[in-house]
Amino acid sequence: MTEFELIKHYFAQQSLHRPDVMLGIGDDAAILSIPAGMELAVTTDTLALDVHFPASASPYDIGYKSLAVNLSDLAAMGATPAWVTLAITLPQADESWIHSFCDGFFTLANRYQVQLIGGDLTHGPLAITVQAIGFIPTRKAILRSGAKAGDLIYVTGTLGEAGLALLSLQGKASPVPEDILTRLHRPEPRVTVGEAIRDIAHAAIDISDGLTADLGHILEQSHVGAIIYVDQLPLSHLPHEGGIHLALTAGDDYELCFTIPTDKRAELEAKLTALSCRYTCIGTITEQTGLDLRYQNGKKYHGQIGGYQHF
Amino acid sequence: MTEFELIKHYFAQQSLHRPDVMLGIGDDAAILSIPAGMELAVTTDTLALDVHFPASASPYDIGYKSLAVNLSDLAAMGATPAWVTLAITLPQADESWIHSFCDGFFTLANRYQVQLIGGDLTHGPLAITVQAIGFIPTRKAILRSGAKAGDLIYVTGTLGEAGLALLSLQGKASPVPEDILTRLHRPEPRVTVGEAIRDIAHAAIDISDGLTADLGHILEQSHVGAIIYVDQLPLSHLPHEGGIHLALTAGDDYELCFTIPTDKRAELEAKLTALSCRYTCIGTITEQTGLDLRYQNGKKYHGQIGGYQHF
Repeated sequence: MTEFELIKHYFAQQSLHRPDVMLGIGDDAAILSIPAGMELAVTTDTLALDVHFPASASPYDIGYKSLAVNLSDLAAMGATPAWVTLAITLPQADESWIHSFCDGFFTLANRYQVQLIGGDLTHGPLAITVQAIGFIPTRKAILRSGAKAGDLIYVTGTLGEAGLALLSLQGKASPVPEDILTRLHRPEPRVTVGEAIRDIAHAAIDISDGLTADLGHILEQSHVGAIIYVDQLPLSHLPHEGGIHLALTAGDDYELCFTIPTDKRAELEAKLTALSCRYTCIGTITEQTGLDLRYQNGKKYHGQIGGYQHF
Repeated sequence: MTEFELIKHYFAQQSLHRPDVMLGIGDDAAILSIPAGMELAVTTDTLALDVHFPASASPYDIGYKSLAVNLSDLAAMGATPAWVTLAITLPQADESWIHSFCDGFFTLANRYQVQLIGGDLTHGPLAITVQAIGFIPTRKAILRSGAKAGDLIYVTGTLGEAGLALLSLQGKASPVPEDILTRLHRPEPRVTVGEAIRDIAHAAIDISDGLTADLGHILEQSHVGAIIYVDQLPLSHLPHEGGIHLALTAGDDYELCFTIPTDKRAELEAKLTALSCRYTCIGTITEQTGLDLRYQNGKKYHGQIGGYQHF
C-alpha cells in the first residue's frame, strides 16, 4: 500500500465520527466545530523508541500508550477529550505493525469518544507524536498554579507499579505479574476523574515523571510547599520501603495528583467512590515552601528523590 | 540546562502572547478561547532528518520550514493561523542548535501572529512535528472536494524552483543562486492568499508533493478532471522543458493550487494583485475525469509524472 492507502485503510476508516467534526482525515486540515461556553485544552506528547518504550514493545501497547499519555494530560486539566492528531515516523511500512498499533490506539480512542482528525505518516526512526484537544467549560480548567496552603493532597489509584514493571523488564527487579506490566504498557488515563474534580480541585497534575517531580511543579507554580506522609502512599502490590521510593520517584503511573480545600473532602470522596476510583489523601499543602516527606509518626523520610530528566 | 529550563528559556519566553491564550506553555495542556462564529482548522506535519532535510540543513531553516509547511496547510483551507504546538526529538540538548532553530521558528511564527502554546522535547533521532490550529468563519473552509467542471485552475507564485534546488544540492543539477535555495529551505506559506480566496475558491490545496500529485487529490475528491496547459506553468528561472517536468512533479514549492468559477476571475485577480501575489491560470476543470496535460497548441505532453511517496 502507498502512504495514502495506508492512512485511508488503517487510520481514516477505523476512527469513530463525532458530530462536531465537519471534515476529518483527507484534506489539508481538519475542520472542527466548537460547542458554546467551552474553552479548548491542547496538549502534545511524543513517545520515542528506546526512550519511552523498548524495541520489544508491542505495537498494540505503543498505540494505546501514545494516546493514553495525552488523554492523561487533558484529564489533569479537567478537560473532556474530543479530537486527536497522530504523527508517526516508521522505519518501514509494516502493515502488521500498523494494524496492531491501530488496534491499541483505537481501543482507547473509542472508549472516550475521541476522533482521529488528522496526522502524518513519515519514513524515519520509530516515534509517535499525538496531539489531543479537549473541551472544558470556560474558566474551569484545573491549573498547576492553584494550590493553597491548607489544601489536602490526593492521588488516584496506586503508585509505583509502572516503575516496578520497568525495573523488572530491565532485569533490576524480579519478574512481575501481568497486571503490573499492564500498568506500564497500558495506563488508564483518569479522564472521568478529571471531569469529576474540575469544580472541586484547586490544582492538578498527572504523574508521568514521578510523584515528587510532578507535585513539585504544583508547589513551584503555586508558590507553596507540602507535607507528604510516605506511609500513606497507596502502594498496592509493592514491598514497603522500596515501594515508597518507587511511589515517590518512578514515572509512568499516569495517576492524578490534585489538591482540594478541606471543606470539599466529602463531596470529592463521594464523587470518586461513584466512579469506583481508588483515592488516597497523602498530605497537605503548606505555606512554607519545600517538600517535607515524613512518616505519620513524624520521622523524616531520607530516601533519594528525583524525577526523570530527558537531558 | 535541563529539559524544563530549555523549554522555558528558548521556547516559552520567545513566543508572542495572544489574548485568546488563557494558559500557554507550562501546564499539562494549554487553555484557549475561541472567537464566536469560527470553526477550527487543525493540521500536523513532521519533518524528519534524511527524509525532509539532510544532516547539513541549518537549524534555522529546519525551524522555519517545520512551521511553514503547517501554515501552508492552513492556508490551503483558507484558515488564519493562531496557535501551534511543537514536538522535537533531538539526539542531544545542543543549545546552539536549539537557539538557531528557535530563531527560524519564531521569525515565521511572529510574522503571522502565531503563538507557541505547548510542545514536547524528547531525546531521540532528529525529527520535528508541528501541529497548527487556525480559525475560519463557519462553513467557509476551502475543501479539496469542491472543484466543479468549468472552474479555472490557478497557482500562486512559480513552480519547480524548490525541486531544482533539491536536485542541485543532490549534485543532479548545476549550482543554483541563493534565492532558489531559499525556495527549498524557507518557503513562504501563502497565508494571506488563503484568507483572500476563501470566499471565491471552490477547491484548494498546497503544492507539497508536486502539482500533478496535489491537483490529483482535488480531481479525485471532486470527481472531476482537468486540462493543464504545460506551457502556461509559471517557471521563473527554470529552463523550459526540464522546467515543465519539475513544475509538474517536484514537491516543496508550497504554492497554492485552487479552482474558481469563471465569473470570479476579475475579483480574484484584483485581490491577488493587491497582495502583490503572482498568479497564473494554468487550465480548467473538466467533467471528464483524468488529467490532460497539453501545450496550448493542442499537442499532448508526454513526460513522466508522479509525486513523492513516503513508502
